[in-house]
Amino acid sequence: MKNTRANAVYRRVVASAPGKITLFGEHAVVYGKPAIVTAISRRIRVSVERRMEGIIISSGDLTVRGVEVVMGRGSVEARVHAEHAARLLSYVSTALRMVEEKLGTRADGLRVSISSDMPVSAGLGTSASVSVATIAAYMKLLGYEPMREEVARLGYMVEKTVQGAASPMDTAAASHGGMLLVEPWANPPYKPLRTASPGLPVIIGYIARSATTGELVANVRRLRDRYESIVDMVMETIAEITREAVKALLQGDLESLGLLMNMNHELLSVLGVSTPRLDELVNLARSSGALGAKLTGAGGGGAFIALCRSRDDAMQVARSIKAGGASVIEASLGAKGVVVEEAK
Amino acid sequence: MKNTRANAVYRRVVASAPGKITLFGEHAVVYGKPAIVTAISRRIRVSVERRMEGIIISSGDLTVRGVEVVMGRGSVEARVHAEHAARLLSYVSTALRMVEEKLGTRADGLRVSISSDMPVSAGLGTSASVSVATIAAYMKLLGYEPMREEVARLGYMVEKTVQGAASPMDTAAASHGGMLLVEPWANPPYKPLRTASPGLPVIIGYIARSATTGELVANVRRLRDRYESIVDMVMETIAEITREAVKALLQGDLESLGLLMNMNHELLSVLGVSTPRLDELVNLARSSGALGAKLTGAGGGGAFIALCRSRDDAMQVARSIKAGGASVIEASLGAKGVVVEEAK
Repeated sequence: MKNTRANAVYRRVVASAPGKITLFGEHAVVYGKPAIVTAISRRIRVSVERRMEGIIISSGDLTVRGVEVVMGRGSVEARVHAEHAARLLSYVSTALRMVEEKLGTRADGLRVSISSDMPVSAGLGTSASVSVATIAAYMKLLGYEPMREEVARLGYMVEKTVQGAASPMDTAAASHGGMLLVEPWANPPYKPLRTASPGLPVIIGYIARSATTGELVANVRRLRDRYESIVDMVMETIAEITREAVKALLQGDLESLGLLMNMNHELLSVLGVSTPRLDELVNLARSSGALGAKLTGAGGGGAFIALCRSRDDAMQVARSIKAGGASVIEASLGAKGVVVEEAK
Repeated sequence: MKNTRANAVYRRVVASAPGKITLFGEHAVVYGKPAIVTAISRRIRVSVERRMEGIIISSGDLTVRGVEVVMGRGSVEARVHAEHAARLLSYVSTALRMVEEKLGTRADGLRVSISSDMPVSAGLGTSASVSVATIAAYMKLLGYEPMREEVARLGYMVEKTVQGAASPMDTAAASHGGMLLVEPWANPPYKPLRTASPGLPVIIGYIARSATTGELVANVRRLRDRYESIVDMVMETIAEITREAVKALLQGDLESLGLLMNMNHELLSVLGVSTPRLDELVNLARSSGALGAKLTGAGGGGAFIALCRSRDDAMQVARSIKAGGASVIEASLGAKGVVVEEAK
């Protein structure tokens, strides 16, 4: 777990980290309940390259193009064309600072380039992926071997710094990959789930969001202020579903998993975080052959997942969801965590 | 509570009983949880008239017309054109027999005519209304004053006999009218709710059903066999919602009532008794101005209710629901119970 000083320092390092989805337990995890998160095969790549001075962060192929931030020493001059991309860039700059504070050293100047094959702000944990990939790449550049535990911890600090509050699960998934059982009361608060179901056939759909994660979490909090016992019972029911889902995952019981996903979705609806459009698409996924479907992440639009019996079924569900107006990401579950892809 | 022998016997008696909807707690009540049912202003009328011999039961203006059953002594010759109406007729014949067994007397022959201004098999408790109205009319015809408690009890026995199993709440609502808090553990298992919200502006929509009440109850039972603790938690959460709804009803707090209805609907969805079509219409009601909406009754299609802030809002919701393909019943809540309308 300790960082080992590497022999070499590098001129340019590329690291990548996977996106993640929550299979079970979003929102409930805020109230101390277990959750299951999984890395997906879509990744964010961060290239960190030395330059003489100053820091340039660019993102050439995020969903919105042409974003570039030039930071002087201690000041930031931003030329930003999209709010979402801008948010990602603040994770990068914070990640760079965290690494420098941690290691007590820094590069004179940096060019950071971000590329992604998944959409930002769709609930796929892109901010955690960016943070984690940036940390790993920069540590490597500075001559330190990025250990996953340490990268996850620093990534969590980045998320907390940028957002004010954060869950450690996104950065844990981005660092460790695979599937994780999140147990907020434990230390560490997550552990790997060695499932009998690697490469689960899942389709991820997403639509525009009408509310931010912060707003949705606050809405649930207000509902609990009003109906504490009802909301607590819902959270505990979601926890029980997550516990059953762990059993189903270990057994590779896809049919049970689908049923549990359906139930989890409806309980999220009780909390008011689904939308009619999400319900419609989730129902569409179910009626076109999915074993189960649910929103994933905070809700209010955003991403949803559909579990299928086979890859063929998944393709059929993908077609239906596309026809229903959603964007579709094809990805397999349980992808590998943060990786240094290139160092020279 | 005792039947008083009346001085007169009659040639023809007409009695009517209201339909009912469940505001909160359907399905959970099967597991001993509280529920709230309310009579609605749509009624079934049963006319019972003496004839020389034999029993003729006819239903001129049920949804399906032209139903007539001619029963000889002990045998039944049925000319039935619709399964739903046929089911109603078996409630009538059983109700007649229960009254005769109870009172130890009978008419030589009878012509029973049923009319209804609500649809059958839409979850509005028409079988209970028919049973209760028949019992009241026939008791009166035979010279006994039908007391509501006794009529409810006999009606419950009719439902149990015809269906094999039954809840006492439908016949209680049809007999007593108003709103009832159903408490399965209490004796009697229901008590009147004196609400601050009489005449609540509610729109009742309904669509075709894809499953019977028995099938839906069995499905929930199977789900519980598989996931006992999850289903028990859902039932207890519904119970808590019902308890909060009693408070909201007593305070006339329509906005809270709407929110609680929404939550109750989503919990019924967890149990798998809603359908995509019902979800769509419930969402449509919500988005077109309802304070809350939920399925009512066993689900699998059937009826749903939308609570509105005003009669104008209710009309708007009714238009949306109609445009969305559902049939709409306009009715006020808390209608009067069984009434002898005519006796001569």
